[in-house]
Amino acid sequence: MSSSSPPEQLKTFLATSSARVEARIQQALCSPIIGAEKLYEAMAYAALGPGKRLRPALVYACAQVFKGIDFDLSRCDSAAAALECIHAYSLVHDDLPAMDDDELRRGRPTCHIAYNEATAILAGDALQSQAFELLLSEELPPQLQLQLLRELASAAGARGMVAGQAIDLDSVDQTLTLAQLEPMHRLKTGALICASARMGALLGGASELELQVVSRYAQAIGLAFQVQDDILDITAETAVLGKPQGADALRNKPTYVSLLGVEGARKKLAKLHNQASQALQNLPGDTLLLQQLADYIVERGH
Amino acid sequence: MSSSSPPEQLKTFLATSSARVEARIQQALCSPIIGAEKLYEAMAYAALGPGKRLRPALVYACAQVFKGIDFDLSRCDSAAAALECIHAYSLVHDDLPAMDDDELRRGRPTCHIAYNEATAILAGDALQSQAFELLLSEELPPQLQLQLLRELASAAGARGMVAGQAIDLDSVDQTLTLAQLEPMHRLKTGALICASARMGALLGGASELELQVVSRYAQAIGLAFQVQDDILDITAETAVLGKPQGADALRNKPTYVSLLGVEGARKKLAKLHNQASQALQNLPGDTLLLQQLADYIVERGH
Repeated sequence: MSSSSPPEQLKTFLATSSARVEARIQQALCSPIIGAEKLYEAMAYAALGPGKRLRPALVYACAQVFKGIDFDLSRCDSAAAALECIHAYSLVHDDLPAMDDDELRRGRPTCHIAYNEATAILAGDALQSQAFELLLSEELPPQLQLQLLRELASAAGARGMVAGQAIDLDSVDQTLTLAQLEPMHRLKTGALICASARMGALLGGASELELQVVSRYAQAIGLAFQVQDDILDITAETAVLGKPQGADALRNKPTYVSLLGVEGARKKLAKLHNQASQALQNLPGDTLLLQQLADYIVERGH
Repeated sequence: MSSSSPPEQLKTFLATSSARVEARIQQALCSPIIGAEKLYEAMAYAALGPGKRLRPALVYACAQVFKGIDFDLSRCDSAAAALECIHAYSLVHDDLPAMDDDELRRGRPTCHIAYNEATAILAGDALQSQAFELLLSEELPPQLQLQLLRELASAAGARGMVAGQAIDLDSVDQTLTLAQLEPMHRLKTGALICASARMGALLGGASELELQVVSRYAQAIGLAFQVQDDILDITAETAVLGKPQGADALRNKPTYVSLLGVEGARKKLAKLHNQASQALQNLPGDTLLLQQLADYIVERGH
């Protein structure tokens, strides 16, 4: 297998969007409350550590589709930062001893190892509020702002990401079928990825119909991301993953690979890739970046 | 010491506002996502268990001051429920083994004892998102809704409640001065109590000046509540507290009693009570309920 890196245009775009979102998060976390400096440090450690910044990239890329490349990206900074904060908080809590009990994330000690458990719990909690504060800090038309907030809250909550985590938690040592695995992932990671794309599209002024197409694209790449994760968990080396290889398999968690085999999972991945590409054909504007993003998700680590 | 119960009018009001907010939370948690039923159960366990519902009561009572007693309370249900969800989530996470490690809360097993740690972490996380979803579910003038959301997010986050918890956590075995204890409590419990009163006042149509007065009242009773908690921790029996007597003292946490002695703490309490009453004199409308609420906070458990 050769390691596939994104094409130049996507690489530049990912670098720009990462830099933008990191600057916005940094700004939000500067001048901590006196006495709570460690909390802010842990929040920054979790939200600004190495990461793909996929959700921010989706916000910027989806907004651009509707507004064109001259679109002022700064309008998206707070939404992108909000989504990254929710994502970061979910990883911090996921890694806790009572949850997945992971000591390594993206090649670094997890938040509760670098700080302590209590600080990690609080940092996660504060990152969640921070996400809403970020989204509320932007000067936007009120109805648009409320729509963005609704997308975020419902994707993050008990009808979105956390429901997926709860189902995932109960699935250890269970024999989940494919019909049960898919809705879990659609909630656990899909909901926030979908919200990222939708929030970008909303900021770009997408119509209701266009939002639905964007959702189809995002759901496909969200699931593809998970399938690829499951494949990499078995086939890639620890250095590529930033976590021990086979960790999910060892934990006896049902995965696409355990249910479909490596080849079956690869077929599933190709199908989802195709679904994403087809959705993009129904969008106006330049969707090249979104196509490249879908390609990259499917090909990363190979 | 005789046990003081609230006057009839306040008792009726507290019963009404508790019933309203519980119904609203129940409604939000019905029809759980398939497979995540335990998460919803744990959320309900945490948010609907026995409790004073002080924050919801403040929302309703403060709204009434500005709208009069004919005010339609249903306009406040979602805000009241949102505040109770934030409060409930903070208790669930506070009780975790890595935090205060409490097994008993309001006379019942804490959430992680009744369920398990992972479920308690997720239930807390989901209750936080739920709070924002609740506030977003209401049909309100967009600017007002955004204002309410800002109050909630900033009171809950790293410049409010969570900052207070982080400072509190670091204060175990520390010799905090009174000048350090007070800002911690103003953040840890004061911020959300203040937000409750302000959100009620906003829903009632209070002016900026009136909001400031409401904040003064709420800050005084918020701190009074804490001082009284510290006094009760030393003087009351476990049955009254719903948690082991002297728990905070045993944990070597600085309290108003450890810093001022019981008599000094009682003087502080009287001063705060007086500040709350004085603030109310600067408000138009009928402030009797708010006065009775302040009296009750100061006198409860005696």
